[in-house]
Amino acid sequence: MRVHPRTRVAQESIFARMSRLAQEKGAVNLGQGFPSEPPPAFLLEAAGRALGRYDQYAPPAGHPRLREALAEEYGVEPEEVVVTSGATEAIHALLQTLVGPGDEVIVLEPFFDVYLPDAALAGAEARLVRLDLDEGGFRLDPKRLQEAVTPRTRLLLLNTPMNPAGLVFPEKTLEAIARLAQKHDLLIVSDEVYEELAFVPFPRMRAFAPERTFTVGSAGKRLEATGWRVGWIVGPKEVMPTLAGMRQWTSFCAPTPLQVAVAEGLKVARREGFYEALRSKYRARRDLLYGGLSALEFKAFLPEGTYFLMARLPHSAQDLLEAGVAAIPGEAFYREDPPEGLLRFAFCKKEEELHLALERLSRLREERGAW
Amino acid sequence: MRVHPRTRVAQESIFARMSRLAQEKGAVNLGQGFPSEPPPAFLLEAAGRALGRYDQYAPPAGHPRLREALAEEYGVEPEEVVVTSGATEAIHALLQTLVGPGDEVIVLEPFFDVYLPDAALAGAEARLVRLDLDEGGFRLDPKRLQEAVTPRTRLLLLNTPMNPAGLVFPEKTLEAIARLAQKHDLLIVSDEVYEELAFVPFPRMRAFAPERTFTVGSAGKRLEATGWRVGWIVGPKEVMPTLAGMRQWTSFCAPTPLQVAVAEGLKVARREGFYEALRSKYRARRDLLYGGLSALEFKAFLPEGTYFLMARLPHSAQDLLEAGVAAIPGEAFYREDPPEGLLRFAFCKKEEELHLALERLSRLREERGAW
Repeated sequence: MRVHPRTRVAQESIFARMSRLAQEKGAVNLGQGFPSEPPPAFLLEAAGRALGRYDQYAPPAGHPRLREALAEEYGVEPEEVVVTSGATEAIHALLQTLVGPGDEVIVLEPFFDVYLPDAALAGAEARLVRLDLDEGGFRLDPKRLQEAVTPRTRLLLLNTPMNPAGLVFPEKTLEAIARLAQKHDLLIVSDEVYEELAFVPFPRMRAFAPERTFTVGSAGKRLEATGWRVGWIVGPKEVMPTLAGMRQWTSFCAPTPLQVAVAEGLKVARREGFYEALRSKYRARRDLLYGGLSALEFKAFLPEGTYFLMARLPHSAQDLLEAGVAAIPGEAFYREDPPEGLLRFAFCKKEEELHLALERLSRLREERGAW
Repeated sequence: MRVHPRTRVAQESIFARMSRLAQEKGAVNLGQGFPSEPPPAFLLEAAGRALGRYDQYAPPAGHPRLREALAEEYGVEPEEVVVTSGATEAIHALLQTLVGPGDEVIVLEPFFDVYLPDAALAGAEARLVRLDLDEGGFRLDPKRLQEAVTPRTRLLLLNTPMNPAGLVFPEKTLEAIARLAQKHDLLIVSDEVYEELAFVPFPRMRAFAPERTFTVGSAGKRLEATGWRVGWIVGPKEVMPTLAGMRQWTSFCAPTPLQVAVAEGLKVARREGFYEALRSKYRARRDLLYGGLSALEFKAFLPEGTYFLMARLPHSAQDLLEAGVAAIPGEAFYREDPPEGLLRFAFCKKEEELHLALERLSRLREERGAW
């Protein structure tokens, strides 16, 4: 059957594929970024209360309770918030709304896999700015951003804390980005779904250019419920009705009972120090994985944020999968010429899974050698 | 801020707007098609059990349990099913996958509002085939379909039971459509979200042209949970991975705990005669509303399916709203020149709401007169 050429972006995502292969092969799944543990009890209880009371359509812009809760979180008005079916739909709606054929979108490389197909579906061209990578890890040279700007550049797509590079951009980088965007009248989409998973101080992009910045957030990432499909956009008020009007044609509204539960969960999480506990849990797991990989003489890069860690190994993702460990091959995050030997490991998994993965990697190293 | 011209489709949907106005004005909401009552207890209990166990990403094609349950429902293989975030995303993904600029899509008029923006977003042109309307109600003359076919026609978008016309297309109409599609090599998208809400025998389109038919279904409609965002596509196996690959970029996956709950709910609903009870409940409410409107000497058309009823009134939707009743103005379902005085009433509401609406309409009639 003939399908439209735009479906060239329709390949199975590497994350879905690795999860499938991990399950098929009984591998420890350090591939796709979802926690092994359930969401917090307060969130599950809130969902239990919402079911049977909030089961019908919500407005496409979001259930009023969730818009209000997010407005409080971000210090904005509810009219500056649109709720989406996960951050994925947020990015889709933003690109559909803001760019089209003839426009260029600057994307940092290595990138999260959604950005390129979404730019392509909007008809825009992605212009990649590659981060430097050396023994010290990834680094963004803001001058590279400046060099990538052309008269057709319309939007700068940022991700901080950055998946998969693990960077958290400091204030001076965000200031430089804001100045660049103001100078060339660029819009900024700042994907900040890992905002509560920064192990160093985390400044928000919108603090530096609120008039042109759209912030993307996710209940799935910060409340450990990636399957709930509740994300959001915070941005300039005048464009929000248009964003709501666009996302209504993709999924109409985000799941109502889960929206209401997240509205309550956001308040409890803040009040009860949930995010501090989350960070400290993942900091420990990051250190466990980093220490373990380093002890095996694999070159690991310590992330400042997200629950991912990049490392260079002399083994391929396929080798690892056969040894019983699923990780995402580095080339998934590069359009071409990826640095050799990169692999992304998710550490949002149980400690015993991390230990088991390290044991299996140790065995692989013994069999196959280090570098 | 400059937005892309494709956002011309981003106006607030009439359904969202009427629900908002109904709430603001304290009107009985017979506008948007969602039930006033909660989903059945067995479904809510299944969701309660899924929460805390199935909270992370599902595969974009759907949670395996739901694909299996749907395969059983439709008598197909799980590989012929893709789960979506509501039927809205199903239709979006189908049009994005199957049509593009230069293609024409035949759409029956009056139409459900999603079809035209989705065709426009895919770059295709909607060619409308208007149903006849006389004192006997709506009627589709299959010859009109034949006349609408051009060399550019690629897809026929059908809706049965049909919202808002209330028709259920009989076998001979579906046979004629199948022959037409086979003759001109057209694809068929059959939106059958009201399949369990037919008050006359309901034949499925795919029975007549399985090789070219994509069936769209919805847990929200058949299990009374419109806010849960669980829909699906059943279609030819070779295209399903592409459809899953396209819908992964709009919302990645449908809400996992609700998918698992629906998988269980579908089986219980079938086993325990839930749909028979649903039909009998809504048949009674349809008859109540139809009888009440007819007694007021308004011209109501008795629907064969869906939970909507069309009627001709000498009052506008605005008049009704001021009298305390929200209904959808007929022009929402027509691109231009709508028949005069049409209004759509949803009867998926509590009996006391229907009674209250009829009282208010009676008062309006006394004040303003009938025709």
